[in-house]
Amino acid sequence: MNHYRAAIIGYGNIGRFLVEAIQASPDLQLAGVVRRPESVNNLPAQLKEIPVVTALSALNQVDVAFLALPTRLVPQYAEEVLASGINTVDSYDLHGELVNYRRRLDQIAKAHGKTAVISAGWDPGTDSMIRCLFQLMAPQGITYTNFGPGMSMGHTVAVKAISGVQNGLSLTIPVGTGLHRRMVYVELEEGADPSAVEQAIKADPYFSHDETHVTFVPQVQDLLDTGHGVLLERKGVSGLTHNQLFKFEMRVNNPALTAQVMVAAARAGFRQKPGCYTMIELPVIDYLFGEREAIIEKMV
Amino acid sequence: MNHYRAAIIGYGNIGRFLVEAIQASPDLQLAGVVRRPESVNNLPAQLKEIPVVTALSALNQVDVAFLALPTRLVPQYAEEVLASGINTVDSYDLHGELVNYRRRLDQIAKAHGKTAVISAGWDPGTDSMIRCLFQLMAPQGITYTNFGPGMSMGHTVAVKAISGVQNGLSLTIPVGTGLHRRMVYVELEEGADPSAVEQAIKADPYFSHDETHVTFVPQVQDLLDTGHGVLLERKGVSGLTHNQLFKFEMRVNNPALTAQVMVAAARAGFRQKPGCYTMIELPVIDYLFGEREAIIEKMV
Repeated sequence: MNHYRAAIIGYGNIGRFLVEAIQASPDLQLAGVVRRPESVNNLPAQLKEIPVVTALSALNQVDVAFLALPTRLVPQYAEEVLASGINTVDSYDLHGELVNYRRRLDQIAKAHGKTAVISAGWDPGTDSMIRCLFQLMAPQGITYTNFGPGMSMGHTVAVKAISGVQNGLSLTIPVGTGLHRRMVYVELEEGADPSAVEQAIKADPYFSHDETHVTFVPQVQDLLDTGHGVLLERKGVSGLTHNQLFKFEMRVNNPALTAQVMVAAARAGFRQKPGCYTMIELPVIDYLFGEREAIIEKMV
Repeated sequence: MNHYRAAIIGYGNIGRFLVEAIQASPDLQLAGVVRRPESVNNLPAQLKEIPVVTALSALNQVDVAFLALPTRLVPQYAEEVLASGINTVDSYDLHGELVNYRRRLDQIAKAHGKTAVISAGWDPGTDSMIRCLFQLMAPQGITYTNFGPGMSMGHTVAVKAISGVQNGLSLTIPVGTGLHRRMVYVELEEGADPSAVEQAIKADPYFSHDETHVTFVPQVQDLLDTGHGVLLERKGVSGLTHNQLFKFEMRVNNPALTAQVMVAAARAGFRQKPGCYTMIELPVIDYLFGEREAIIEKMV
């Protein structure tokens, strides 16, 4: 069977789970992991048998690169990797800049005869596909996306950036109709002023629009859990018939799911003509391993 | 704006709701309804302003035909309509014969430069897309499809066919893990033997494998309600991480949803190259009305 050779760029939360998801996938083979020069020695057990390099070009015959990097670094890497003739998959999640990013990558992908699948995770990603499904079933109505309970990566990073914070954690708690409460847990730096830290957090643009509670704890590490969830709800109209009710709910290990979705997106990418795609632009069958008619027979 | 002209073949439960869904759709225009010769006079109010004919060829400039016919009649009509150079959409639901049906239509569609979208309803249809999504998020595990509570069209037809039954209704009740109870309500013909009728129902292949309860009522009509629902559940593995939990649930007017899904499928059909497709083979964005980048901006 044809095995696609995959590289992982970055080795944080998502990168670790990508190693597992690629190894569990019947049609992918892990070519190696690209890390910063300061991290290539002193490897964790998971990477002992895997080529670890400091530049993608040091790996042989890579068909697809997974960009497991902080979201703001993703576009520049994606452009570079695509231009070197390698498919890319990322989970870029800045909703507001996504359309422009897709346009830029689309040109590069077409110029080099490759594909990029962007924003492949669970939101944006599979949640986006569900929102489209809800919309097709009931074109008129409201969809609410309720996140959590679970740790928000973006909000946690924002907490950690505040002066006086030694370590932090922000949980997203759904309060219904797409609104959220932020539960922030803070381990203070020695001598920091708790009320100044609390005020700085509540004034931060990540938190200023939501109900936010700050709790000080001796050890944030003791609270960490990567479980997350979402509840998508729509009440809408099919034709002229009102009160059509739809719900999608999941409770998952967050980075494990993101990594698995990225692997499926890589597979779908190999089945498209050159260009850049969001997940809603690819047929759902293309994400699945297996022969087309066998999938239709089993899933339809 | 470009309006596609649509015909409805058949005017039962689904046909009635297709009239509404087409009229509510911004990109479709209802060209007319094809009915049996004995039904073209004495029209219901809904059809007063609409061309009603006995053959599709009597309607001008039809771009797509919706086959709102009993499922066994669908393939022959689809082949004929496609061969006349008109796209088709149906909600064919015989799972076991679907792959062969798709193969036959695919040849005809390609020969005539048209598209057919088959099995476009909620199961098969949107449920199939959800099953694929669950599979891509957690490739290992079990998905259960739990139908109801709601009226089963197929089982109700089977009840009505039994000798001694004046009118009947079969409700599907989910009992979990993809198993179902059948609640059958029967209005007896005068002089019919209740216990013979009950035995015949329970021996019918539609009922013999499920827990079935038969209740005799004076008027089945008083019980009719087209509300239906489904609960799709998966517990599975993303990468090497177990206990990933997914749920999709809906409570809907059944024929209204089916008609709306068929309208979306027609729209998607116009956006494909010639061929025959099940819903899982088309990008979910193609089912939605609107400009591509605007949809990406809103939904992703």
